[in-house]
Amino acid sequence: MLETLKRKVCEANIELQQKGLITYTWGNVSGIDRTQNLVVIKPSGVSYDELTYDKMVVVDLDGNKVEGDLSPSSDTATHLELYKKYPSIGGITHTHSNNATSWAQAGRNIPFFGTTHADYFHGDIPCTRMLTAEEINTEYEKNTGLVIIETLENNNIDPVEMPAILCCSHGPFTWGKDAAEAVHNAVVLEEVAEMAMKTLLISPRTERAPQVLSDKHYFRKHGANAYYGQK
Amino acid sequence: MLETLKRKVCEANIELQQKGLITYTWGNVSGIDRTQNLVVIKPSGVSYDELTYDKMVVVDLDGNKVEGDLSPSSDTATHLELYKKYPSIGGITHTHSNNATSWAQAGRNIPFFGTTHADYFHGDIPCTRMLTAEEINTEYEKNTGLVIIETLENNNIDPVEMPAILCCSHGPFTWGKDAAEAVHNAVVLEEVAEMAMKTLLISPRTERAPQVLSDKHYFRKHGANAYYGQK
Amino acid sequence: MLETLKRKVCEANIELQQKGLITYTWGNVSGIDRTQNLVVIKPSGVSYDELTYDKMVVVDLDGNKVEGDLSPSSDTATHLELYKKYPSIGGITHTHSNNATSWAQAGRNIPFFGTTHADYFHGDIPCTRMLTAEEINTEYEKNTGLVIIETLENNNIDPVEMPAILCCSHGPFTWGKDAAEAVHNAVVLEEVAEMAMKTLLISPRTERAPQVLSDKHYFRKHGANAYYGQK
Amino acid sequence: MLETLKRKVCEANIELQQKGLITYTWGNVSGIDRTQNLVVIKPSGVSYDELTYDKMVVVDLDGNKVEGDLSPSSDTATHLELYKKYPSIGGITHTHSNNATSWAQAGRNIPFFGTTHADYFHGDIPCTRMLTAEEINTEYEKNTGLVIIETLENNNIDPVEMPAILCCSHGPFTWGKDAAEAVHNAVVLEEVAEMAMKTLLISPRTERAPQVLSDKHYFRKHGANAYYGQK
Repeated sequence: MLETLKRKVCEANIELQQKGLITYTWGNVSGIDRTQNLVVIKPSGVSYDELTYDKMVVVDLDGNKVEGDLSPSSDTATHLELYKKYPSIGGITHTHSNNATSWAQAGRNIPFFGTTHADYFHGDIPCTRMLTAEEINTEYEKNTGLVIIETLENNNIDPVEMPAILCCSHGPFTWGKDAAEAVHNAVVLEEVAEMAMKTLLISPRTERAPQVLSDKHYFRKHGANAYYGQK
Repeated sequence: MLETLKRKVCEANIELQQKGLITYTWGNVSGIDRTQNLVVIKPSGVSYDELTYDKMVVVDLDGNKVEGDLSPSSDTATHLELYKKYPSIGGITHTHSNNATSWAQAGRNIPFFGTTHADYFHGDIPCTRMLTAEEINTEYEKNTGLVIIETLENNNIDPVEMPAILCCSHGPFTWGKDAAEAVHNAVVLEEVAEMAMKTLLISPRTERAPQVLSDKHYFRKHGANAYYGQK
Repeated sequence: MLETLKRKVCEANIELQQKGLITYTWGNVSGIDRTQNLVVIKPSGVSYDELTYDKMVVVDLDGNKVEGDLSPSSDTATHLELYKKYPSIGGITHTHSNNATSWAQAGRNIPFFGTTHADYFHGDIPCTRMLTAEEINTEYEKNTGLVIIETLENNNIDPVEMPAILCCSHGPFTWGKDAAEAVHNAVVLEEVAEMAMKTLLISPRTERAPQVLSDKHYFRKHGANAYYGQK
Repeated sequence: MLETLKRKVCEANIELQQKGLITYTWGNVSGIDRTQNLVVIKPSGVSYDELTYDKMVVVDLDGNKVEGDLSPSSDTATHLELYKKYPSIGGITHTHSNNATSWAQAGRNIPFFGTTHADYFHGDIPCTRMLTAEEINTEYEKNTGLVIIETLENNNIDPVEMPAILCCSHGPFTWGKDAAEAVHNAVVLEEVAEMAMKTLLISPRTERAPQVLSDKHYFRKHGANAYYGQK
C-alpha cells in the first residue's frame, strides 16, 4: 500500500543524510496521505545506509501500525499531533542538525537577520518553552507535538509561513507540503541557524532586520504575487 | 547567439556550486558582451545540477529578454545597474555564502586584517546602508544596485580595486573583468570573511593592518608593477 | 590468535578515520577478550591508510606484548587501567578530535544542554583534573588511566551510563561494550561537544537542561524500559 | 637536475592542497639540496591542479634562477633567508590556512593549551612583530624572512623544536627536515590553531598548560628518548 508515498518518504530521508544533517540514525522524515489519513514514517533506529522504501512504516493518525515489519520512529507521536492539527502540512522532518540544535539548546528564537531567512521563514523562527516534568514523564513525544502547537497558536503563527520550530533543549522540526519540502526546509534552517549565530559573533548587538524586508523577500517567493523562479 | 559567453557564464555558475558557496538554487552569475550591450544571466530558481548553457537567459541593459525560454534571475535588475554604471565590470556574482552573508547581516564592513584580504581587495570591504521601506517596496532589485553604487561613490571606491560589496541584511555581490573572475572573487571573499570573523573571536580588539601592507600586497598582484604569478 | 577481535578492532580504528576524527596517525582503538584477558590495540604511529588487521598488537593486562611485530600504541597503559578497573568495558577509543579536545584544553565538563547529549551520556561529561608534575614524569600513561578512574569514582559515575571523559589539556577517551561502540561514542561526543560550544556562543549563560529530560532520553534508549530502535 | 627533489617538493605541494589548506594558487612549498645549496620551489601563481614536477623552479641561495621555465614563488626570498640561517631546515611551507592565518591576523602567539600542540611544538607558537613601512616597501619578502629569524633569535627558540611561526597580519610558515615534514607541520598547525581558538571560546581565561606537560609530550615523540611510534 502507498508505494508511491513510501518511495518519496524514503528518498526524503536519504536526502537528509546526503545534505549532511544526519549522524548515525538520528532524525526522521514522514509524509501523509490525506485521502486515507495514513502516515508513512522512517522506522526507528535504522541506519540511513540500509534504508529502503519497503522498510517504511505506515501508521494511522491514532498511532496504530497499519503496515510494516519494523517499529516506527520513536518520534511518531509528535508527527501525528502536527498532522492532526494542521491540514496544510503534508510532510514533517525532525533532525538534530548541528546549528539548529544549538539554538534549541540555547532556548532562543532565531531572529530574522536577513533575506536568506526571509526567503523561507516569515518572522523569527520560534523556540518552544521547556516541557514540564509531568509532560516529559507521560506521553513525552505527544506532548512535544502539543507544545509545538501551543507555541504556534500563542503567537498567531501560520505554519505555512513558518515551516520550522525549535524544541527547547532538543532540536528542530520542519514541515512542508510534502516530505521533500520538509527536508528542503530543514536544510535551509540549518544554514540560517549557522549564519544567525555568526552574525551575533560578528556583532553581538545586531538587531532584527526591518519587517518590510521580511515581507518583500517572503512574498517574492511565496503566494499569489511571487516572481522568484519559473512560472 | 552569444554561445561562447553563455558557455562561460554557465561554467562560472557551476564553479560557484563546486566551490561550496551554494545551497539549492541560491546565487547567480552573469556576464556582459560590451560590443552588443547584452547580458547573459542564470535563469531564476533553476537547480545548478540541471544548468546547461542553453538555459542561460539573454537580456538587454533595460532588462528586456532578448533570448531564452526561462525567466532570468530575480536579481537581474541589480546586475544591470552595475553594468550600466561601471564599464570596467565584465561579470557579476551574487551569493548567500555563509560567512560573507553573516557580515552583511551584521551590517559591518569587513576590516582589512591581513595579506589574504589585501591580495584581492584594496581597503575594507564595504557594507551598504539598509534600504528604506520605499526602496524595498518599489523596484527593490534595481534599488539594490543603486545602493551599491551609492556606497562605492560616496566612499570614492574604484570597483576595479574593490571587486566586492556586502548588501546590508542580504548578502554579497562580487565582480570582475569576466564571469570567472567574479566567481573567483566570491570564493576569496568567503574565505576572507571567515578569517576576519575568527580574527575578532581570537582578539576582539584587533585593529586594521597598516595601509602600507594593503598597498604592498594589492599592487604586488595588480597593476603595472605586479610581480606575482607568471608574466 | 584473536583473529576476529583483531579484525573488529582494525575496522573500528578505520571507522574512526572515516568519520573525520583523525589527523595523520593520531588516536587509537582497542578491544578486550575477557575470557583470555588479552587486549588488541592499534600499533603506535602507524598511518590509518596502511592499517591492516594483522598489524594489530596483542598485549596482556600487565602490558606485556603477547603477539605482534610492531609496538603498541603509546597510550596502551591508559587503556589497561580502564579494562582492569571496569569489567563492563569491552572497547576503548582515544582521539584528539577537534571539539572534544577543545573542551579538554579548556578544562571544563561538557554541560548537559539537550537531548542529543542525553541519548548517550547520562549527566555532564566530566573533565579530569590536571596531572601533577610527578604523575606526568613517572608512568604518565598509567596515571592518565588512574586520573580517569579517580574522576569517575569521586563523582559516583557509572562508566556504563557515562561512556566518555575528557583528560584535562589532552583529549577525550570513550568506551563501550566493544570497540565499535567505543568509536560510535567518540563520534557522538565530538558532535555533542561542538553543539555545546555553539550553545554557549549563542547564549553564554545557558543553564543545564532539567535532569528529568536527561533521564527520559537516556532511558528511552538504554536499559530495561528502552523503546528507541527495533526490539 | 635534482629530479628526485623536484618530485618530492611537487608531491608536498599537492599534499598541501589535498589536506584542504589551499584556496586557488595560494601557498608554496620548497625543499633544499644542502650538498649543492640549491632550492626547489613552486612556481608563482600556478594552479595546484596543473602542478607537475618538471614545472618546479630551481634557485640558488642568492635567488638566481638556475633552472625552470617559470618564475619562482613570489615568497622565494623568505624561504632563502631561513635556509641560509638554519642548516637544520630542509623544507619550508607557507600557507594562508584559515585558522593559523586568523591567529596571525590577530597578531597573537598561539598559547600551549594541550598535548596535541606539545606533540609537535615545544612552547607557544610565536607571532612576529608587524614589519615597518620601510621593511614592507623595500625587499618585503626578504624582510619577512629576517623578522622570522629575529623573532626566533630574540626568544631563544630552536627552529627544530618550534617548526612554525605566524607572520603578523599575513600567515604561517612551517618547516622541517624536508618538504614533506614541513607540510605535515602546516597541517598540524592548522588543527592546533583551530582548537586553541575554540578553547578560548569555551573558556576565555584558559591559561597555558604546565610546562612539564609540554616537555613530556614533546620528548615522548622527539629526541633520543622518544618512545612514540615504531623504532
